[in-house]
Amino acid sequence: MTIPTIKITEIVLTPIAFRDPPLLNSAGVHEPWALRTIVEVHTDAGISGLGETYGDLGHLERTRSVVSALIGLDVFALNEMHARVAASLGGKSGSDKHGLTGQLSVAGTVDRVYSPFEVACMDIQGKALGRPVHDLLGGAIRDSVPYSAYLFYKWDGHPGAEPDEWGEAIDPAGIVEQARKMITQYGFGSIKLKGGVFAPEQEVEAIRALREAFPDHPLRLDPNAAWSPGTSLKVAAELDGVLEYLEDPTPEIAGMAEVAASAPMPLATNMCVVAFEHLKPSVEVNAVQVILSDHHYWGGLQRSRQLGVICSTFGIGLSMHSNSHLGISLAAMTHLAAATPNLNYACDTHYPWNARDEVVEPGVLSFVDGAVPVPKTPGLGVSLDRDALARLAENYVKCGITSRDDTGYMQKFDPSYERKRPRW
Amino acid sequence: MTIPTIKITEIVLTPIAFRDPPLLNSAGVHEPWALRTIVEVHTDAGISGLGETYGDLGHLERTRSVVSALIGLDVFALNEMHARVAASLGGKSGSDKHGLTGQLSVAGTVDRVYSPFEVACMDIQGKALGRPVHDLLGGAIRDSVPYSAYLFYKWDGHPGAEPDEWGEAIDPAGIVEQARKMITQYGFGSIKLKGGVFAPEQEVEAIRALREAFPDHPLRLDPNAAWSPGTSLKVAAELDGVLEYLEDPTPEIAGMAEVAASAPMPLATNMCVVAFEHLKPSVEVNAVQVILSDHHYWGGLQRSRQLGVICSTFGIGLSMHSNSHLGISLAAMTHLAAATPNLNYACDTHYPWNARDEVVEPGVLSFVDGAVPVPKTPGLGVSLDRDALARLAENYVKCGITSRDDTGYMQKFDPSYERKRPRW
Repeated sequence: MTIPTIKITEIVLTPIAFRDPPLLNSAGVHEPWALRTIVEVHTDAGISGLGETYGDLGHLERTRSVVSALIGLDVFALNEMHARVAASLGGKSGSDKHGLTGQLSVAGTVDRVYSPFEVACMDIQGKALGRPVHDLLGGAIRDSVPYSAYLFYKWDGHPGAEPDEWGEAIDPAGIVEQARKMITQYGFGSIKLKGGVFAPEQEVEAIRALREAFPDHPLRLDPNAAWSPGTSLKVAAELDGVLEYLEDPTPEIAGMAEVAASAPMPLATNMCVVAFEHLKPSVEVNAVQVILSDHHYWGGLQRSRQLGVICSTFGIGLSMHSNSHLGISLAAMTHLAAATPNLNYACDTHYPWNARDEVVEPGVLSFVDGAVPVPKTPGLGVSLDRDALARLAENYVKCGITSRDDTGYMQKFDPSYERKRPRW
Repeated sequence: MTIPTIKITEIVLTPIAFRDPPLLNSAGVHEPWALRTIVEVHTDAGISGLGETYGDLGHLERTRSVVSALIGLDVFALNEMHARVAASLGGKSGSDKHGLTGQLSVAGTVDRVYSPFEVACMDIQGKALGRPVHDLLGGAIRDSVPYSAYLFYKWDGHPGAEPDEWGEAIDPAGIVEQARKMITQYGFGSIKLKGGVFAPEQEVEAIRALREAFPDHPLRLDPNAAWSPGTSLKVAAELDGVLEYLEDPTPEIAGMAEVAASAPMPLATNMCVVAFEHLKPSVEVNAVQVILSDHHYWGGLQRSRQLGVICSTFGIGLSMHSNSHLGISLAAMTHLAAATPNLNYACDTHYPWNARDEVVEPGVLSFVDGAVPVPKTPGLGVSLDRDALARLAENYVKCGITSRDDTGYMQKFDPSYERKRPRW
């Protein structure tokens, strides 16, 4: 039984936009449209694979710029693909306008651009071999992957539009109501609150209200670096015994290390350790005790799996981060999590906020008791809904948004709003 | 195209013994027979895979003890296989009598026992998929893998036996002659001298003689922790500008860190960092600048590939270690090295010392200009020579050796010989 090489013949990138509720965070508020790019990789074997990545224009252009260098590559030649992406980018680095991850390093930019191609190639490998992607990552060690309820302070709807199905949440009672609704619908067994929106006292109050309403759900709070180290330590002391971890209370490795030295709970991050080069400086000062992996910026599934080994080697906990995403990402996250033994926390997902605009055919991905059953079909197990893709691509053109700008959108309604980090 | 699960139906372990020359090291001298265990994994798909591991009785018994727990496993379920090996060993740890790696931790023992099964499963995966093993590790980024000439001080033959083909090497002239012979035959472009045998002054002299005879060959010296930190620093200063790295001059992470702080060249190790749990303490004190990976004790090919990522992440160089081995190991080492981008040193191999007793069919592995061309056939690319296996298995029974004991063998001829570390 011999499978010939499977060479890439064509790559199609389609930027899309899907509806996003007015979710509040430390940088402002989500715009009505969230952007992604759908990556389709076609091969001479007639097998195609899918990837999903960021839709911001800078990233889209960088991703486009490497495509021609990948044509003709065997889908198993991933080391070579990574090298070609690096060479094609030629030392370019990126930044995000929304400021939630900040300026990227050159190596971090390579891993971001490489990621959706790797995922698509793993999808193709799996399809060619008749194996689910998790089998190419060492095999699933869990049958379903637990996700967490990802709560946001939010407005009842975008200004000028009808209220959305989730309603308003601008105080502890609203957050508890949102949690009830989401947990009723999805069955989540863990809760994460996106903070950094209101004064820390109110957010502490919201966490206490959640604890009372959900006594057995592990709780997390993520203010996206909105606090000074001093404020962070004060909140940490108040929430001793309440949070399973506190996520990015304050900016930068040095600040996190200062907080970690005295905080009673583990600190987690998807802001100060977001590329392999951040691991050494972070380990040196024990800045974080939990890393939120994310294959979109850690260089795809295999490199994220390797991040897992680094975490277990250096005694760091492992959880999983999410941005606004659709089903290709959810499938990839689920395969990765299934094959990562030391992933000991429920993964983040924005999926409930965006699921109504899904781009993959229904029927594969579902939430059962807050967890996604791991697909057992070849590859990622998902296929594109072509009508949906066309509709979402049209949204992209129509909506006029090319880069996420939570701050600018907030300033439309509150001209006095300022980006500040830390804010408290 | 669907490939059904490929389940393990039978595992056969065959301890073997092959001829070994009287190679000297810091613990004594190699006995006339070196031991290995050949691992054959059979599946319900009619595809079998090969692994090669240590032959010492303690390791053989631990390896045997996990076999029943692996029957019925899918060959892609490697995460699960690792967990089952750990559970089966139930917290047992091992040690080696020869003292070159010392007491093993529980986790290190799991990785050693797991390794040959993982290699055999990767061989089966590759055969089932029609892909060479390196394609399952991210793809080859080199067409051939450079190895180094691995020189040993040695006697002309085992006492009471005829001189062997390599002759005596007990002084700088003998070492240079051995290097010439090995490089003429294999074409190696790098040289490693196993030291720790004679006083450091003589070994420095041997390195200087090698430098004169081979002005362009990178040189390494490995005294197997025979020196105190003070002696190590003296030798390091004398060989400034001569060695590409100095390997394990002194015992333990603390000793290596003391030497590393002042030595002018990188320090390498396959003694003080031999399991994932050693990485954190070593990184904390910058004990070593190069790690010699070895899939036999780093938990197989995928985990060794992950070690490579850890090394690149923490700014540590990567080379490859070898014990006495035959062709299954050489094939596995070559696939791994081919798919490890940051492996920037020529790999060690004992192969020239043991090649006359090969256990695999000839024609696949060869040395061209000191490098082994990477096999491009499915799996590892090697198959067992059944006659050779039978002969080597008979050797094992006849030779009466069940554990490597370089010190005891030396003491037969020199009753005053003592194991000492450090010796100088």
